Amino acid sequence: MFLENIGQANDIKKVRKEDLNALAQEIRDFLIQKISVSGGHLGSNLGAVELTMALHLALNLPEDKIIWDVGHQSYTHKILTGRRCGFESLRQFHGLSGFPKRKESECDVFDTGHSSTSISAGLGLVRARELTGGKNTIVSVLGDGSLTGGMAYEALNNASKLDTNFIIILNDNNMSISENVGGVSKYLNNIRTASGYLDLKRGIYNALTGTRGGKNAINKIRKAKSSFKQLVIPGMFFEDMGITYLGPVDGHNISSMVSVISDAKRVEGPVLIHVLTQKGKGYLPAERHPARFHGAEPFDIETGIPSHPRIVANYTDIFSTVMCKLGQRDEKIVAITAAMPDGTGLKRFRNMYPKRFFDVGIAEEHAVTFAAGLAVGGLKPIVAVYSSFLQRAYDQILHDVCIQNLPVVFAIDRAGLVGSDGETHQGIFDFTYLTGIPNMHVCAPKNKWELSDMLKFAVGFGAPIAVRYPRGTAYDGLKEHRAPIVLGKAEWIYQEREIALLAVGSMVKTAEYVRNTLKEKGYSVSLVNVRFVKPIDEEAVKEACANHRLIVTMEENVACGGYGEKVVDCMNRYRLKNLCLNIHIPDAYVEHGNVDLLKQEIGLDGDSITERILAAYSGDM
Amino acid sequence: MFLENIGQANDIKKVRKEDLNALAQEIRDFLIQKISVSGGHLGSNLGAVELTMALHLALNLPEDKIIWDVGHQSYTHKILTGRRCGFESLRQFHGLSGFPKRKESECDVFDTGHSSTSISAGLGLVRARELTGGKNTIVSVLGDGSLTGGMAYEALNNASKLDTNFIIILNDNNMSISENVGGVSKYLNNIRTASGYLDLKRGIYNALTGTRGGKNAINKIRKAKSSFKQLVIPGMFFEDMGITYLGPVDGHNISSMVSVISDAKRVEGPVLIHVLTQKGKGYLPAERHPARFHGAEPFDIETGIPSHPRIVANYTDIFSTVMCKLGQRDEKIVAITAAMPDGTGLKRFRNMYPKRFFDVGIAEEHAVTFAAGLAVGGLKPIVAVYSSFLQRAYDQILHDVCIQNLPVVFAIDRAGLVGSDGETHQGIFDFTYLTGIPNMHVCAPKNKWELSDMLKFAVGFGAPIAVRYPRGTAYDGLKEHRAPIVLGKAEWIYQEREIALLAVGSMVKTAEYVRNTLKEKGYSVSLVNVRFVKPIDEEAVKEACANHRLIVTMEENVACGGYGEKVVDCMNRYRLKNLCLNIHIPDAYVEHGNVDLLKQEIGLDGDSITERILAAYSGDM
Repeated sequence: MFLENIGQANDIKKVRKEDLNALAQEIRDFLIQKISVSGGHLGSNLGAVELTMALHLALNLPEDKIIWDVGHQSYTHKILTGRRCGFESLRQFHGLSGFPKRKESECDVFDTGHSSTSISAGLGLVRARELTGGKNTIVSVLGDGSLTGGMAYEALNNASKLDTNFIIILNDNNMSISENVGGVSKYLNNIRTASGYLDLKRGIYNALTGTRGGKNAINKIRKAKSSFKQLVIPGMFFEDMGITYLGPVDGHNISSMVSVISDAKRVEGPVLIHVLTQKGKGYLPAERHPARFHGAEPFDIETGIPSHPRIVANYTDIFSTVMCKLGQRDEKIVAITAAMPDGTGLKRFRNMYPKRFFDVGIAEEHAVTFAAGLAVGGLKPIVAVYSSFLQRAYDQILHDVCIQNLPVVFAIDRAGLVGSDGETHQGIFDFTYLTGIPNMHVCAPKNKWELSDMLKFAVGFGAPIAVRYPRGTAYDGLKEHRAPIVLGKAEWIYQEREIALLAVGSMVKTAEYVRNTLKEKGYSVSLVNVRFVKPIDEEAVKEACANHRLIVTMEENVACGGYGEKVVDCMNRYRLKNLCLNIHIPDAYVEHGNVDLLKQEIGLDGDSITERILAAYSGDM
Repeated sequence: MFLENIGQANDIKKVRKEDLNALAQEIRDFLIQKISVSGGHLGSNLGAVELTMALHLALNLPEDKIIWDVGHQSYTHKILTGRRCGFESLRQFHGLSGFPKRKESECDVFDTGHSSTSISAGLGLVRARELTGGKNTIVSVLGDGSLTGGMAYEALNNASKLDTNFIIILNDNNMSISENVGGVSKYLNNIRTASGYLDLKRGIYNALTGTRGGKNAINKIRKAKSSFKQLVIPGMFFEDMGITYLGPVDGHNISSMVSVISDAKRVEGPVLIHVLTQKGKGYLPAERHPARFHGAEPFDIETGIPSHPRIVANYTDIFSTVMCKLGQRDEKIVAITAAMPDGTGLKRFRNMYPKRFFDVGIAEEHAVTFAAGLAVGGLKPIVAVYSSFLQRAYDQILHDVCIQNLPVVFAIDRAGLVGSDGETHQGIFDFTYLTGIPNMHVCAPKNKWELSDMLKFAVGFGAPIAVRYPRGTAYDGLKEHRAPIVLGKAEWIYQEREIALLAVGSMVKTAEYVRNTLKEKGYSVSLVNVRFVKPIDEEAVKEACANHRLIVTMEENVACGGYGEKVVDCMNRYRLKNLCLNIHIPDAYVEHGNVDLLKQEIGLDGDSITERILAAYSGDM
């Protein structure tokens, strides 16, 4: 019962050394128990229990700073800094965030969520410390998956110039969310599997300077399995850049890590500690199925089986199925993911067409320009990616795909509110950043049938196009409405008078509800499924204006650059003077929580929208 | 007179070996002569003459593919592929582009402009070749500066997986636009300066396997100046990733390069050729002042002095001066550039406050998150960057700066049309991508005095803010109008009736001209200097609507998410029914050429705008 005594930062230092492993076990049990109920990032947190404890033992918080890359591994850090009770409300509306949050604790120094930012942020803190005369220790903790993101490398390249201390901890579990990819991963893996490397490292120096022990080292090299070069000096990849390399160390041995962190603090310059951990450590189902337990839904602890197994298909499933069919029909179709074969649903495509599937690591920039290259080479690339992560590749879409007008399809999942992951993951900006780009085309399906139709349309389209769909259950309603997809054409679902609802993608379902409510109140209400946000259907807007007093646009995107502004702009250009109400995400970050609650909070649920329409219709906008 | 015989691709192969150096000299003379008249990228092109010739000798174009990273070094490639005559119109409106363009030649395989994309694009072509059964050779050519961009590393990490040929040529001149920075640069430099490295590479293997010659090698290592580790195996940094390293080779020796490229073609996998070149090679002023001759204005060949020396200050000069003053007043002010100390005008700040200046390399993503870290550390960072390059850091602005609402100032130069660099460099999207981000604030000055005032306002503002200003001469007019900068407040310059011009930044000068023209025609015209595009001054819009029949917005940005849409949205929300005409960049990429000509082409010049206003006012929008 050591966990009960951890009430705030540094309380862990009161735990006796011999009790630390017991505390680790308590934390692990706590995490498994809580996440089995709430859902959350299990594997990464189980892997980082001892590492986090070692950091808290070796550092003084909040003076010393820990920046957690991505941040989904910060649960133990939250437990050790007085937030254990918060786990009752983990990832729930107004509850504890699943990521570091400065507003939650002074021990959280930098908010994260996307990958590969921690070294840049840490380096900023180090430079600020130098200029303001501080003495604290600054540590960035990143996984090996984050090292596949180019930004981490930009930062390493800059860190190499330091002559004051900066500790980078590479938490190497040989995984991104799925298996890791690429040369660096191979390199790290060779270090992991080499036996006796630390001795070798010393030995090789001895051999070359002619001292005793040299010959022994040479013999060891001869016998080693890994390639010669990679054995000569582990970490040379980093040392080449001017970064002192320490390790590898066992990431589940607390005292070893405390010792090496203490050593690292004495280095006058950048130092990388290579820590070897196991994702899901201590919970067998998570060790065996790391991808499944990366971001887990609530599960039964004994079996690891989801407590509420999903029966109905979500949009990702639909995408997954359609991709397999399309792949069969057309050999030129290739698929690209940035480290999300599971999340995007491309796993089945990968299994069926392994040569036409590319997992590029957490490297959205490369993913998009690589797709541009594939398109120039005559193929039909489909980049499957989450809306918020595609933000990383904005310039590549604009500069590499759209200037050349290349036929790259963007299948944008998790568009709109995503829920429990919060601010960093909401996909509420893609209409803005995509529709501002010349040559880009953007559509969003109303239901699962339309997602299928739009994907088929997109792969045959021959120019840059994005199909954007939300997280969660695929809407099965309105299936009798399945007019063929035509570029820039909306679909009239109900054509009446008075009020016209122009709804985009996921909002069509909401609009259906709103319409029914308004109908009950005696209004005559049309419903237009917008389909294309670029180009918009100006004829549909004009027709709506001709026959309705109030036009209502509905979308899960911020106002700026969204569908609503395009409609208002269109109405202005054609001098159409109807009332127009734009329903959209407000100009503010939306926190984590149940999507239905979030929508109520920001007025995007059916009832709030109905109220706003009634107010607008009665002239009280 | 060999150059005259080069009429199309592969003609170079008809030149006798012993005449190749003479051809190189002719190309060099041609480049110096042409660029001295037209302006353009001189240094990078002079450095790549022999490298380009060697590629054209070793490859068959257009079957084989060369992807030029950034692309500003592709002039010799253009000469060798039948575009010599085009140099009369280099970088001019409707003339030859200064960058590779697929529509210009089938020998240009991928359009470039921004840095670090070539390996990704090349890898796409390689994968397409594998899937379609092609046999051609694919080569990506990038500078060592491009290697400071993380995207190049994402691509290297992926290239390492290949088991078919892919040639990456590292054109290492030890420069970005200015001196190169960071650990990789240091690493490459150590390879450059190491004597006898190739022998050493062989020797070290011998030493370790106990064969003869080993001792000699050890002695050489002892005497070497560079650090031991970096000498052991040059290129190990790349070999670690699984990429075969060849080199370094002399980038001004044609036959050596032809030979090594031929060797490289036989490698079944990714291979990097490390070529050492000198930027500005063969033209003394460019060798001595590489930064000045990176993108050169027309100059006198004999002296290297600009033909039309600039007398009046441009906006960059103003920024430069203000930064030095601000730096003196407040020690917390720090400045960041991504490899552009000259271009952004930060050089003077660097010289005055070297410890508070950070050149991070061509690494915009890192630059922004690093700035976020500096802000968390209590400093006041100013990121000086070109509008089109900041596109690279969209996610970092959104995710690392704005979620945490950190006081980072973005000084955005080259915003609006930039002219001769063309599509890839036009800064016409920043209002779109920036104003969609919650917590962001965006302003644009009407003249040089206001740039100064806005920068002072911004550093004291305490939240994310961007000041956006164009390339070229700083407008000195309207200097008597200098109302204090207030967040979200526009400035009324002339308050009349009938027509209200709401002009943003650089367009205020144009609006002044338009107003004078309209006044001459008898109209009563108000002029509002918009100042803030986020948040916009709704009161000013309402006031304009109250007193004018026609509202005209004017901005150098695309429509989507721009100021005009915000005004129309505001008018819609307040049920203001005035005529509103939005003047903006069309939804299309704008090519290279003189900015005045470009503006005429797209209807953004004073006369076109006046005509459009008159048509709108008379009801003919």
